[in-house]
Amino acid sequence: MTLSAPIIRTIEWKEETVVVLDQRALPHEEVYLTCADYQAIADAIRLLAVRGAPAIGVAAAMGMALGAMGISVQHMPQFLGRFHKIGDILIATRPTAVNLQWAVDRMRAVARHEQHLPLAALVQRLKAESCTILEEDLRCSTRIGACGVPLLAPEDVVLTHCNAGALATAGGGTALAILYQAKAQGLPFQVYACETRPVLQGARLTAWELQRAGIPVTVITDNMAGWLMQQGRITKVLVGADRIAANGDVANKIGTYPLAVLAHHHRLPFYVAAPCSTIDITTPTGGGIPIEERDPHEVTHIDGTLITPPQVAVCNPAFDVTPAAYVTAIITDQGIIEPPLARGIHAVMEAVR
Amino acid sequence: MTLSAPIIRTIEWKEETVVVLDQRALPHEEVYLTCADYQAIADAIRLLAVRGAPAIGVAAAMGMALGAMGISVQHMPQFLGRFHKIGDILIATRPTAVNLQWAVDRMRAVARHEQHLPLAALVQRLKAESCTILEEDLRCSTRIGACGVPLLAPEDVVLTHCNAGALATAGGGTALAILYQAKAQGLPFQVYACETRPVLQGARLTAWELQRAGIPVTVITDNMAGWLMQQGRITKVLVGADRIAANGDVANKIGTYPLAVLAHHHRLPFYVAAPCSTIDITTPTGGGIPIEERDPHEVTHIDGTLITPPQVAVCNPAFDVTPAAYVTAIITDQGIIEPPLARGIHAVMEAVR
Repeated sequence: MTLSAPIIRTIEWKEETVVVLDQRALPHEEVYLTCADYQAIADAIRLLAVRGAPAIGVAAAMGMALGAMGISVQHMPQFLGRFHKIGDILIATRPTAVNLQWAVDRMRAVARHEQHLPLAALVQRLKAESCTILEEDLRCSTRIGACGVPLLAPEDVVLTHCNAGALATAGGGTALAILYQAKAQGLPFQVYACETRPVLQGARLTAWELQRAGIPVTVITDNMAGWLMQQGRITKVLVGADRIAANGDVANKIGTYPLAVLAHHHRLPFYVAAPCSTIDITTPTGGGIPIEERDPHEVTHIDGTLITPPQVAVCNPAFDVTPAAYVTAIITDQGIIEPPLARGIHAVMEAVR
Repeated sequence: MTLSAPIIRTIEWKEETVVVLDQRALPHEEVYLTCADYQAIADAIRLLAVRGAPAIGVAAAMGMALGAMGISVQHMPQFLGRFHKIGDILIATRPTAVNLQWAVDRMRAVARHEQHLPLAALVQRLKAESCTILEEDLRCSTRIGACGVPLLAPEDVVLTHCNAGALATAGGGTALAILYQAKAQGLPFQVYACETRPVLQGARLTAWELQRAGIPVTVITDNMAGWLMQQGRITKVLVGADRIAANGDVANKIGTYPLAVLAHHHRLPFYVAAPCSTIDITTPTGGGIPIEERDPHEVTHIDGTLITPPQVAVCNPAFDVTPAAYVTAIITDQGIIEPPLARGIHAVMEAVR
């Protein structure tokens, strides 16, 4: 079994274009977008055709490479100036997932370090770097899966939120990578997937990919999780992350924090799975993580249908922050970080520098 | 201001038929159903055209009267037998809200006590009793409102769930009756309404009726409540109830229990507003309250659109139970019941017997 192969091809190069599985059309249709320039990638990120912190990082790296391919100047300083600006445009698409910033910074660093190359060679080098980032992401998924499997027990009933699966990455998953490896090892378990309003990533994406993998999955509305825990029907909570602060506070899809409080209240383990590229040691605590406020239409409309009275006020924060105190462990590609999380994060990030 | 007049006419007699505001069509259309027999009332309850524990009680009473009008037998014993069976059919429509059972029992008691009357007179007596139940419900709303207003403070930000408003009653409201009276008294406050998946009573009904009343309301998805509390943006939680056990455990719309846990966690008051007809002293604790499991389509479809992969497993409990320990107070038509709730409930129920 080659677990570093993608479970689903969410994003890949096809010659000089980047092909993205359009997650807005799932679970009903598998539609692929062909992105020929960085603007198409920026739109795909902004409009959630590609989503999930690691996948956004890969998409941004490929967007930077596409951007480099489209710069028609003769001199390196002008090239670097334009390349830097493309990074700003990509970073501005979504503020919370730090992998976006991380990938852009990494592509910028390559350009800076390799500016001695002829322009055409540098552009190829940048494209190659985006491929490396994709491959690393797949390896991260495999490592996260391997690190996390020992935390599961036979007959576990795992609650997950949003989509931290193959679709949220280059194709391997973070939280769901653990479940895929557990399934491959024959562990019997089942999953409850919170539908994850407003964008329904749980109902649409997690349900789809787990069903496709033959893992028993039951969809619930977000407000049913408390009742299931009260009934003793959940044994563990396992989610992904969009950004982890240096102290272990975790920004993840809106609705994660109440699940953490409920898990704490019911004495259930609450695990977060993420690659180290999701850890932001420059942000000391969760209070410093910007929370994206998205279009009110995501709340007022479902599949184009208005569900509220017209013109009603709504609020649409896309993420919330779970304090480190509620996190039982963070499962990374570099091992499991246990409390005190701040110390563990520091040690892991020193090691990967 | 006549606060015992309905804010919205949710259900009323029009000659020999019962006219029900069809809540499935809200907030987009005001459609009224004309129910000419008890089966039409049973369908309206089962399919959520009329919903909310007090409103279901009134509808069931009117359904019993319609049922009585439709019985074509000459002798009282046969009449009483058929009348009893109609009660069973109405009770079977929804298991959790105790007001349904309460209203049917009350109509049966009238029939039993007045069986000396000629049949035609008894039928009229039953119709009159259903009108009395409606009027009492309106008075209950007024009293709940009056009892609850002193619990609010200027600039309160009240979180509510589902619809405990005019639409959930004969037209006065339970939790929202308090807000209507506070508004009438000039108190400045605002409301966050949880959308309340799967049936979206918050987004569709609460938002509609509060907006109509000029009360500032913001709709959120159910999973945003924790984040708002964490940000200090909620000051009180106020919900209705479908059944309250003798010990003060509260069955209410699915998603109420997690709000109670979150309120407890953030040290926010958690108030439940309900008429005494919602208190079931024959059920000692919440563990004895039957939780209705509804059609999976409510979860998998929104407005007829499939949102999950086809054939995915779902779970659809319509209610959950909040333990008495998380309830700051129960606001009834007979006054405020404070902890220990069991003792307060006992005292109030003795007084209304």
